[in-house]
Amino acid sequence: MNKIAIAIHGGAGTILKKYITPEQEEAYKKGLKHALDVGYAALEQNKTAVESVELSIIEMENSPLFNAGKGSVFTNKGTHEMDASIMDGKTLYAGAIALVHNIKNPISLARQIMEKSEHVMLAGEGAIEFAEKMKCKFEQDSYFYDEFRYQQWLEVKGSDKVQLDHAVNKNKKIGTIGAVALDALGNLAAGTSTGGVTNKKIGRIGDSPLIGSGTYANNSTCAISCTGTGEFFMRGVVAYDISCLMEYKGMSLEDACHEVVNNKLLKLGGDGGLVGVDGNGNIAISFNTEGMYRAYKQFKKPGVIAIYKEN
Amino acid sequence: MNKIAIAIHGGAGTILKKYITPEQEEAYKKGLKHALDVGYAALEQNKTAVESVELSIIEMENSPLFNAGKGSVFTNKGTHEMDASIMDGKTLYAGAIALVHNIKNPISLARQIMEKSEHVMLAGEGAIEFAEKMKCKFEQDSYFYDEFRYQQWLEVKGSDKVQLDHAVNKNKKIGTIGAVALDALGNLAAGTSTGGVTNKKIGRIGDSPLIGSGTYANNSTCAISCTGTGEFFMRGVVAYDISCLMEYKGMSLEDACHEVVNNKLLKLGGDGGLVGVDGNGNIAISFNTEGMYRAYKQFKKPGVIAIYKEN
Repeated sequence: MNKIAIAIHGGAGTILKKYITPEQEEAYKKGLKHALDVGYAALEQNKTAVESVELSIIEMENSPLFNAGKGSVFTNKGTHEMDASIMDGKTLYAGAIALVHNIKNPISLARQIMEKSEHVMLAGEGAIEFAEKMKCKFEQDSYFYDEFRYQQWLEVKGSDKVQLDHAVNKNKKIGTIGAVALDALGNLAAGTSTGGVTNKKIGRIGDSPLIGSGTYANNSTCAISCTGTGEFFMRGVVAYDISCLMEYKGMSLEDACHEVVNNKLLKLGGDGGLVGVDGNGNIAISFNTEGMYRAYKQFKKPGVIAIYKEN
Repeated sequence: MNKIAIAIHGGAGTILKKYITPEQEEAYKKGLKHALDVGYAALEQNKTAVESVELSIIEMENSPLFNAGKGSVFTNKGTHEMDASIMDGKTLYAGAIALVHNIKNPISLARQIMEKSEHVMLAGEGAIEFAEKMKCKFEQDSYFYDEFRYQQWLEVKGSDKVQLDHAVNKNKKIGTIGAVALDALGNLAAGTSTGGVTNKKIGRIGDSPLIGSGTYANNSTCAISCTGTGEFFMRGVVAYDISCLMEYKGMSLEDACHEVVNNKLLKLGGDGGLVGVDGNGNIAISFNTEGMYRAYKQFKKPGVIAIYKEN
């Protein structure tokens, strides 16, 4: 067994202990641990990094706790629009979807695009058509309905205000989920999935489905999944920037992540974070916000699950 | 007057002299020259690089010769879906649209998103709604109708075949247009606009509207606009890769473009090209195909207009 490793996130933002009840904290930690365990078990069974990333993300998409899949927030029209992407660090193949609705697991659809189409990215009705052809699992609107998120939307409905979740002083479900993994064969993969931001303009695409911005994987450097104010991650081409700092400047994964998240991204005005893993199984967790839902596990080491800045 | 410079492209691909009549060649050269002159004149009048890039692209979008705006190709449903993006190298602000229809000048809508919204990217009906709010110019379907492109579509309609234009041995209008510029204040900008590929799946998004893939600008390095098989430019994060090779490895613009287009992109299997300009007014024109519609002009030097590999 080679050095296997996995890291996941469930969003970064203004996550402060005072806004979260012990019960909520427990629920989030349980949700993270479950997603981590499922992905890590897959790696132990010699499944690929792509498979492991997909499995971990599916668990979070199926949970109402996280803003992706089932837990997606409402757009300004009261609808759901989900984005996701996945990349295989061995082949540099990638798949992404944007602005889809009623798809149970957007990350699986992104993987189907990567593996079964000649495209990298499909959006809207074109993506839905492809999902039907691939026999992806659909769910009714009621599956995605969540009273808490609905109330959250009613608060800002009709205004131009978006709720980034992680930018408000309330305990709210956070922006994006993602996973990165190194499998037993030394291959890397990264995936990201999101339900957007509350009351977002329909048609807005953030960094999550963009290869190089929200997601990137390359066996020769690292696998990265981001979360935060998407527009800044797009302008900074954040995920690929970390890979370039490693490849062209010889930086370590940790130094590259720190430089991008705590220096370059802050200068642009962006807040958020990311998880990363390199080919040696090193893991980096970086965020410039008060907290980030996160968990990771490296071969033969105990798993780590954390929420706030200090844990 | 500082060193001003502009470079534009009208697509790269299998462009061979034997497939193009002297009249067609003349028309393309005239179209390129006109777009170049308009952009260069703007720079001479101390307009910004962003303005100049937009003006050059508008000229090409308004021409039926190029696959963008008026000349956009048909999707697999017989509709038009246009994508565009623009980036300001001074501020790193960016704007992009995907999958829009009936917008006369997609590049101007991308600029409006950059300057008048909190978003970077809007797609589909959400982008159209924003365009209405901004009072962007719309055109009827008939404006975008072109007998030649319609026949081109009929040939592959009903099949899964896409016509990349640049991959077939016929004289066909080519994939994407773009421009990069350096203005008198030393600011860089890049923009790209496309009508997609003939018979493409609706909802397919290529590299043209993606910041870092098809378009990137940063005063500290370069401005880049790409054209070619979009999926490979997305997986290679091509435009930002050139910037990183310059910033992190100290490569010149020309060397970085050559490395990416003639080495890295070819290894991925991607064909196409790009135009680039740096802060000193150096221009790079790179393509790994038989030809690329292109033109450039540097301060106090004669303009250059070319189509085939050897000119």
